[in-house]
Amino acid sequence: MQLSSLLIAIEVGGVVAFATSGLIEAMRKRMDAVGVFSVAFVSAFGGGTVRDLLLDRRPLFWIEHEAYLWLVLAMALTAPAWLPMALRETGARLMHVADALGLGLFAIAGTSIAQASGMSPLVSALMGATTAIVGGVARDVLCNEVPQVYHDHRPYAVCALAGSAAYLGLAAAGAGAQWASAAGVAVATGSRLAAVALGWRLPRWHPRRP
Amino acid sequence: MQLSSLLIAIEVGGVVAFATSGLIEAMRKRMDAVGVFSVAFVSAFGGGTVRDLLLDRRPLFWIEHEAYLWLVLAMALTAPAWLPMALRETGARLMHVADALGLGLFAIAGTSIAQASGMSPLVSALMGATTAIVGGVARDVLCNEVPQVYHDHRPYAVCALAGSAAYLGLAAAGAGAQWASAAGVAVATGSRLAAVALGWRLPRWHPRRP
Amino acid sequence: MQLSSLLIAIEVGGVVAFATSGLIEAMRKRMDAVGVFSVAFVSAFGGGTVRDLLLDRRPLFWIEHEAYLWLVLAMALTAPAWLPMALRETGARLMHVADALGLGLFAIAGTSIAQASGMSPLVSALMGATTAIVGGVARDVLCNEVPQVYHDHRPYAVCALAGSAAYLGLAAAGAGAQWASAAGVAVATGSRLAAVALGWRLPRWHPRRP
Repeated sequence: MQLSSLLIAIEVGGVVAFATSGLIEAMRKRMDAVGVFSVAFVSAFGGGTVRDLLLDRRPLFWIEHEAYLWLVLAMALTAPAWLPMALRETGARLMHVADALGLGLFAIAGTSIAQASGMSPLVSALMGATTAIVGGVARDVLCNEVPQVYHDHRPYAVCALAGSAAYLGLAAAGAGAQWASAAGVAVATGSRLAAVALGWRLPRWHPRRP
Repeated sequence: MQLSSLLIAIEVGGVVAFATSGLIEAMRKRMDAVGVFSVAFVSAFGGGTVRDLLLDRRPLFWIEHEAYLWLVLAMALTAPAWLPMALRETGARLMHVADALGLGLFAIAGTSIAQASGMSPLVSALMGATTAIVGGVARDVLCNEVPQVYHDHRPYAVCALAGSAAYLGLAAAGAGAQWASAAGVAVATGSRLAAVALGWRLPRWHPRRP
Repeated sequence: MQLSSLLIAIEVGGVVAFATSGLIEAMRKRMDAVGVFSVAFVSAFGGGTVRDLLLDRRPLFWIEHEAYLWLVLAMALTAPAWLPMALRETGARLMHVADALGLGLFAIAGTSIAQASGMSPLVSALMGATTAIVGGVARDVLCNEVPQVYHDHRPYAVCALAGSAAYLGLAAAGAGAQWASAAGVAVATGSRLAAVALGWRLPRWHPRRP
């Protein structure tokens, strides 16, 4: 299946955003060069790879579009030049923005790819969330931490699901793909940024000590 | 391939049992709502998903039977209502029984599916064990713990393999699918419950300090 | 696709080497029998399994060659007899040699299989590195450690990539498969052994504290 150019633009944005978040994490952990490259690759390609495996799509999206590989390779190679400067200037905000952007872009990419493969709305939304969060979970597991997404009590997967729902709803209502996609990304990324900025919290899921 | 109604009954039982064990674990860890849902999904669907990926079966079993998804969703949504009460009343025993039931049911489901895909007895038994234990291992890795199954020195995978062997032996001897399945589940679940109740221990695999 | 007998010889060597490294690790961790078997299997088959999943090759290499399974089973069963003796006599060197040999053999096996599946040189080299390092990473994640390959600051994946590059370069230059393979293994294993013996270090990838 050929991705439309809209989908390619969304995917490139997501790859750049998540590779950046992976580079920031790995540098914070003072990893060596191989660790930095690996974490950047896993963050950028992990979610989409799992989605493609679950849907049995071949070639994998980063084999079909090998330019994505070269892009992340170039970002990692040049990271010592631009990343410390970027970090110094904008602090932890860059990480949050990169992460929220990647979340929204990958959620919509995954949802629309799953829908095009004939999946139901529930499965499509789950594939969107998988695409959006698996990269970050794998990154955290590799760094030997409880995945942030599971214990920071800020909405994350919920934002991806909200964006997917917006996309699926608008598409079902007859909106054009570009409008549905834009709205979906805006809902997912916007709600995540708002959650971080305003301190929205998820409920703990245990009303009293058992 | 259509699952027989026998296999569906076995799978539903395994999904309910492992989702329950995942909900208990995640609530103990005081995870937020997303963490609780994710751990319930991974515990219930992780093993069968890896089995389907290794055997190249599509659609995945929880995409083919989307009702499984809705079932786990409903269990997680209502968990704060019924789970603390269940925990208070029966303590840690509920966790052990749910886990042992899931172990036996998924071991037989995985073994019979692999055999129906033309796998050899050794590979079929390994697929049964994979189906039975991967969900729990993934749950523990996500929670940043050494998987219990690898260091509690109680038989676990061994019980799954014993159940699979009983199933394969009876099926090869000409027993009907329902009798072989029932015996396999009984051997796997029963031996696991006995191991926990009676304190059976696995040998450490290192006779002296190297 | 049938593996040539050259490739089978390379794979058997890699399986034995990595199973040995997994057995050493698991015994050091004082795991029980099931833990020891699981870690041996994951170390020996993890990398090739992920490669086969990514390339959509079926049957998986250890299902196609079921003798590999029996081989690792026999190694794990007899490990208490021969491993402590081997450890006592040769100390940590055995681990390093087994690991370096497995690295080189699996890197070339993975690269040549990917190339035979029509992958580009970049993707083939990445598949070689995946085959060579995923088993060890999964082993370390299961043991709840930051994967050594990411933080020991010794070249590891880089050695696999160097061996793959040597193989691909010689094959492109028209060398026979056996010479290209031998040179690739020699470059990967030799550079890894030299790195450990001489204390070569990878650069950290963060020039100054951000």
